[in-house]
Amino acid sequence: MNKTYSVGIAGLGTVGTGFVNQILKFKSNSQKIANIKISKIAVKNIRKKRNIKLSNLPITTNTLSLAKDKNIDIVIELIGGSSGVAYKLIRESLKNKKHVITANKALLAVHGNELAQIAEKNNVSLNYEAAVAGGIPIVKAVRENLRYNNIYKIYGILNGTCNYILTKMENDKGDFKDILKDAQNKGFAEIDPSFDINGIDAAHKIVILSSLAFNVKLDFKSTFIEGISKIDSADFKYARELGYTIRLIAMASISKNSVQQRVHPCFIKKSSDVAKVVDETNAIIVQDKSIGKNIFQGPGAGSGPTGASVLSDLMDILRGTRNLPLGTAISKKLKAKIDNIEDLSFSYYLRIKAKDKPGVLAKISKALSSQKISIESIIQNPPVQTQNAEIILVLHKTKESMLLSAIKKIRKIKDVGSSVKFIRIENSI
Amino acid sequence: MNKTYSVGIAGLGTVGTGFVNQILKFKSNSQKIANIKISKIAVKNIRKKRNIKLSNLPITTNTLSLAKDKNIDIVIELIGGSSGVAYKLIRESLKNKKHVITANKALLAVHGNELAQIAEKNNVSLNYEAAVAGGIPIVKAVRENLRYNNIYKIYGILNGTCNYILTKMENDKGDFKDILKDAQNKGFAEIDPSFDINGIDAAHKIVILSSLAFNVKLDFKSTFIEGISKIDSADFKYARELGYTIRLIAMASISKNSVQQRVHPCFIKKSSDVAKVVDETNAIIVQDKSIGKNIFQGPGAGSGPTGASVLSDLMDILRGTRNLPLGTAISKKLKAKIDNIEDLSFSYYLRIKAKDKPGVLAKISKALSSQKISIESIIQNPPVQTQNAEIILVLHKTKESMLLSAIKKIRKIKDVGSSVKFIRIENSI
Repeated sequence: MNKTYSVGIAGLGTVGTGFVNQILKFKSNSQKIANIKISKIAVKNIRKKRNIKLSNLPITTNTLSLAKDKNIDIVIELIGGSSGVAYKLIRESLKNKKHVITANKALLAVHGNELAQIAEKNNVSLNYEAAVAGGIPIVKAVRENLRYNNIYKIYGILNGTCNYILTKMENDKGDFKDILKDAQNKGFAEIDPSFDINGIDAAHKIVILSSLAFNVKLDFKSTFIEGISKIDSADFKYARELGYTIRLIAMASISKNSVQQRVHPCFIKKSSDVAKVVDETNAIIVQDKSIGKNIFQGPGAGSGPTGASVLSDLMDILRGTRNLPLGTAISKKLKAKIDNIEDLSFSYYLRIKAKDKPGVLAKISKALSSQKISIESIIQNPPVQTQNAEIILVLHKTKESMLLSAIKKIRKIKDVGSSVKFIRIENSI
Repeated sequence: MNKTYSVGIAGLGTVGTGFVNQILKFKSNSQKIANIKISKIAVKNIRKKRNIKLSNLPITTNTLSLAKDKNIDIVIELIGGSSGVAYKLIRESLKNKKHVITANKALLAVHGNELAQIAEKNNVSLNYEAAVAGGIPIVKAVRENLRYNNIYKIYGILNGTCNYILTKMENDKGDFKDILKDAQNKGFAEIDPSFDINGIDAAHKIVILSSLAFNVKLDFKSTFIEGISKIDSADFKYARELGYTIRLIAMASISKNSVQQRVHPCFIKKSSDVAKVVDETNAIIVQDKSIGKNIFQGPGAGSGPTGASVLSDLMDILRGTRNLPLGTAISKKLKAKIDNIEDLSFSYYLRIKAKDKPGVLAKISKALSSQKISIESIIQNPPVQTQNAEIILVLHKTKESMLLSAIKKIRKIKDVGSSVKFIRIENSI
């Protein structure tokens, strides 16, 4: 720990600013165990207003120069984005035998196999604790502790924006758009929230956890992703009536021959662990054959939590800890067969707009039973006033492809509107 | 990772048996990344019945021979006890430059400073993930991630036996002794449960977490410890009526000049994080200035969870990760000033047996106000039938020494029995 490490930082957004402030504070406090020198800070726009004084810092606008700078030992990439300058910077830095720290889940989910292999070949670290669940030390916990225990399921709430919106809707605090606007005003949602709302951000994270937990290569493309923008307050009212609530669940699990990787809204029981996770909090639940169940809960975003995780990655490098980025060598990682969502079986909540005429329910039941789907319960008198009447069904477990076939038939029934909506029910979490 | 490490294991109780079975399974499964050879297994009594076949294993009864065996690289101590053979084995093994893994919280809490210093001097690991909260990877999380973030409070439920008993009492499933017997039958409590029931086991663990979180030396002696054996079902009934429940809380916190280390039963709000932790589950909550709040929850004991943590310690050594046992060098650890419990302030639940005569309450109020203690609420008609009437008071925050003085006065009041009981209220967790 006596060597002084030179650090280059790329990006001074929320995370970068938080981290630099933390480093400066850390260096000045009593725990002077770290010999860190900030050699260069790369920003795109020098004139942008920031919560930090640039005048005393070694600023450059040439981001890629960090990868070539012989004085820099560690490059910290806090720019974001799955391609472009962030990708080039990380790849070149690793090739030049620099340790790299990043908070960039998008980049890792898409290019992580390649980047991990370069890091491995050059015997340098590629650390990314901040990329998954912000301040929760889940990457280290899975990579260095839990993966030896035959994990069969790792899931949870990995997007704070969605959880904030859904728990506000749960408490009847408004409809989707109003709450999203409120979240944006409070800084819990981005100006362009599409990656969050569409489930893509959570998918990036669960793909990384899946690779660590199950010793498989990163495979973002095969991951099933569905967002929360179609959930409305009526869904929450029906869910409540049926003893459920709604959350965006990121799920990875392994069976004998295949892996599930999926992100979508779920009906979950009010008593489940994830139902207790409210507002912008994140939670990850790891189930394995030795320990049973470990729950990790904490803040999933924000400059403090993310900065703290970047700092812990940095301290790992300073202490001399070297881990393979994805736990095992890329050559020993398996290419997983990822299940197609249509081949999986769920219970379902089915919401059908239909005219309140005799015989409609009978026709719907017939369409379902033609696909061998049986009905568990029906809400006959939906509590919500709408133009059309609504029929709410809870369906017994069935293969999704069967449900989709049944829905095609239901849509053709006279007196049924085009709006047939389903949400998967997760009874086992 | 190509070197084969020779391992010596001392102790084949619940943890040892679980761990050896895990190693054998681990070696035979597909993740063949570990080159581990079990060189010796030391047991006290060869004839004892165990859940493992000894015939194929390299058994010895000479435990201390492991420390001297030149073929052994790593000694795993799973005997237990804060002194005796476990202590000698660990000290000698470290002196002989062997890595040591232990699950022995008692030994670490009492002799940890000395042992960490020997490990440090000889540049070997002393790993103990299993010593605190079984299968929850909290030691690594605090030591390698969270301690850089100015932790000011680390607390939780660190004894599964006590939590099992208290949550059964909470749900009105019987009185202390019956539930303890039930817990013993189910294997959740030891035959001699005194270390659990008296709070000592939880204290061993919180002392270790305090040292890691606050960069102070281990100090078990100055830790305040009070067990749960005096809690009865009436306390739970009163707690419920007041909106609280009761848990054994292990707490460490730091202020400018001093550290709190204490284990005792607490009234906590029904809505608090720890109130949701039921049965034999453990939970640790870490609060710091960067992240905010991280919650870790999982199984705190049992052969599976403990064995899994021992395995993760072993994998750390195999991967070449070397950490100082207590995070920083012993020479850089501060000797903390541990607060005396009498100097701390709490709100209190006070339960007084007294004859139902006019004027008694007035006398009690006078005794309290003489110590400047004010009453927040009174349960006038206790719901429990007892021989004597009872007066239940909730007191505003006051220094504990003031309360003790008031209680002395209350005991002298005519018509008040000798039974004056108080439980601290934790409103901030």
